[in-house]
Amino acid sequence: MPHTSPLDAAADGPFGPHNLPYGVFTTAGDPGRARIGVRIGDHVLDAGAAARALASADADLLCAPHLGPLMAAGRPVWRRVRRTLTAWLTDPAYRLDIEPHLHPLPEVTLRLPFEVADYVDFYASEHHAGNVGRIFRPDGAALTPNWKHLPIGYHGRAGTVVVSGTEIVRPAGQRKGPDDPSPVFGPSVRLDFEAEVGFVVGTPTRPGERVPLDALPDHVFGVCLVNDWSARDIQAWEYVPLGPFLGKSFATSVSPWIVPLDALEHARVAPPPRDTPLLPYLDDAGHQPWGLDLRLDVAVNGEVISRPPFAAMYWTAAQQLAHMTVNGATLRTGDLFASGTVSGPEPGQRGCLLELTWGGREPLKLPDGSALEYLHDGDEVSITAWAPGPGGTRVGFGEVSGRVAPALP
Amino acid sequence: MPHTSPLDAAADGPFGPHNLPYGVFTTAGDPGRARIGVRIGDHVLDAGAAARALASADADLLCAPHLGPLMAAGRPVWRRVRRTLTAWLTDPAYRLDIEPHLHPLPEVTLRLPFEVADYVDFYASEHHAGNVGRIFRPDGAALTPNWKHLPIGYHGRAGTVVVSGTEIVRPAGQRKGPDDPSPVFGPSVRLDFEAEVGFVVGTPTRPGERVPLDALPDHVFGVCLVNDWSARDIQAWEYVPLGPFLGKSFATSVSPWIVPLDALEHARVAPPPRDTPLLPYLDDAGHQPWGLDLRLDVAVNGEVISRPPFAAMYWTAAQQLAHMTVNGATLRTGDLFASGTVSGPEPGQRGCLLELTWGGREPLKLPDGSALEYLHDGDEVSITAWAPGPGGTRVGFGEVSGRVAPALP
Repeated sequence: MPHTSPLDAAADGPFGPHNLPYGVFTTAGDPGRARIGVRIGDHVLDAGAAARALASADADLLCAPHLGPLMAAGRPVWRRVRRTLTAWLTDPAYRLDIEPHLHPLPEVTLRLPFEVADYVDFYASEHHAGNVGRIFRPDGAALTPNWKHLPIGYHGRAGTVVVSGTEIVRPAGQRKGPDDPSPVFGPSVRLDFEAEVGFVVGTPTRPGERVPLDALPDHVFGVCLVNDWSARDIQAWEYVPLGPFLGKSFATSVSPWIVPLDALEHARVAPPPRDTPLLPYLDDAGHQPWGLDLRLDVAVNGEVISRPPFAAMYWTAAQQLAHMTVNGATLRTGDLFASGTVSGPEPGQRGCLLELTWGGREPLKLPDGSALEYLHDGDEVSITAWAPGPGGTRVGFGEVSGRVAPALP
Repeated sequence: MPHTSPLDAAADGPFGPHNLPYGVFTTAGDPGRARIGVRIGDHVLDAGAAARALASADADLLCAPHLGPLMAAGRPVWRRVRRTLTAWLTDPAYRLDIEPHLHPLPEVTLRLPFEVADYVDFYASEHHAGNVGRIFRPDGAALTPNWKHLPIGYHGRAGTVVVSGTEIVRPAGQRKGPDDPSPVFGPSVRLDFEAEVGFVVGTPTRPGERVPLDALPDHVFGVCLVNDWSARDIQAWEYVPLGPFLGKSFATSVSPWIVPLDALEHARVAPPPRDTPLLPYLDDAGHQPWGLDLRLDVAVNGEVISRPPFAAMYWTAAQQLAHMTVNGATLRTGDLFASGTVSGPEPGQRGCLLELTWGGREPLKLPDGSALEYLHDGDEVSITAWAPGPGGTRVGFGEVSGRVAPALP
């Protein structure tokens, strides 16, 4: 029987050598030692161990306990490391050296792969923002007057960003229905998910440095999936006039694998046509497009309930980064900015229950016969995605999942 | 002539041994080595060097290059270290050992004393929130319906918190007047300050742990002053519906000295009477009060233009911390939460130019004859404060100051 290698099995799959996302893992035998991993098929390459064994010049970066040093090293290093990894995982000459450093995926525990510096959440889907406007302000304009002029965003809580698989304890807080004389306190009764895409900043900026549209790949290390858990009842009562706070700050989940921006070259598409002229720092006409054709799947308890298309997002990550830095605000390694809920034009493409159930008024019927209005204790939400890769391949994203646990007493 | 010691000179002043705020400094002779300093009078004690010389059990904490390890060590350690420092700086037996480790204040450079984890900004002055409401919504209610039920807050940008003395480059961004057909881009023409008080979290929480009102001193390491620089024109155009973003994220200045919470025992006062019943987790009736009698001075180019009284704040730091954690959000060492603009009931007690000039419609007349509507390039804003200490002393705060530099091209 010929030697079969996990590397052969991986070749044409969503985690083939055209992808090579980065993560951080531990093993059951050595749970205290976090290591950088590179996913290949259903295995994880211990990148630091391989780099040591092969005397790579980048071994120090790859032996770190998280991605920070590699992220901070900048795009030329990212490209060099990616070329090295590609050679190790495709050139048969390396096979005998590499295979001892592969761990089967089920045998590792995936950790939060980087320390989140600042977390910013945008609101970049016209379909999402329009639906929310129609649900909450049925008699007014669906979009606020600023929406088509700038990518609206706000800062979220960096300290409660958690890795996929972390249990999400139902938050408690104040809520007040329109007919309640005063607010009541208790567990949220409108717990929702938001399917989003996150961009991870590697290269920081100097004070006052703005990031023009074309410089996105100089600063963004990679892309992950985000579930921006939202307690709609807490949020609705608190958010005027300073924005969402406790309705979001209890937890935000991210996928464990950071897909390098260079793996998404074949996913770049033009964003939707803009019907409102943009100020020069945001006007991407005549620039290489930074729309991305990522296809998301959202499943609750294993049943896919939505397929949001990221290509339908009005504002691109390049515009968001240009906007976020145009006032002189600096970027740090580890800054995470998320797209906001990804919703497409069709009902089956909406990225949160608020929209999917139209404010709770039209519960979803699940295949098992149950109705889903907002999330129940025990419900598990999983978001996955893929993007077109070279030669008909797919670039896979690791899933971001989380199960709702009962509120604390 | 008898020996005169800086320690004698300090005794009854605002930075006497009843205060002992912590900071981080470097010296011209060793600019790369950040050290923990304790202010005594007009001198700075090199706390790590003193701890080594005196073989203190806490030398490792005090030899760190920032306050993080000491902040994380928790209240029993904070109290022990404070007792030790008090003995060193008051007991004549230590004098010969301590004096070699005192640096005159003008000879040191003060640094950001801790790494900011998450930065939250509240909106806790009823006078400020009411004035802002009357300025922006003259025909509506001054306060939003939620204002008296919960301390409204939002997350700001932790990565752009800077230490006093850092130049503030005028931000650029989008603005749109009510009669402009579309937004324009350029340097902010309504740059403002906000005089605030900041609370620095030392002890983190465990997942799901709520911080009840009486547990404030178990988690808050100390207090500083904050200038939450605000570009009103950028803010006004962007902030609906998700809150302030680029109008604030360019810079937030903090004072270099963190006054220990234990130094403020004599400043504790009852907050203003509440006219709206509070949910139990926020109801501080029957608890020891956490209002604080801090007297702020705001000066522009050396002229005091306002004296905001912190004792007038409606929401206390204890309520803010209880609110911030009631949904299960965790605290990290280095979290900073600020009070929001401190404004009192009188016109001369307002904590920002937006209020002091009533939306720019009533420019301030400065003693030199000039008019101040919003900040000009070159203007310097300095905020100082003191609080009652034991035996008729004052507890001084280090100033937070910053000069406005022209916008980048």
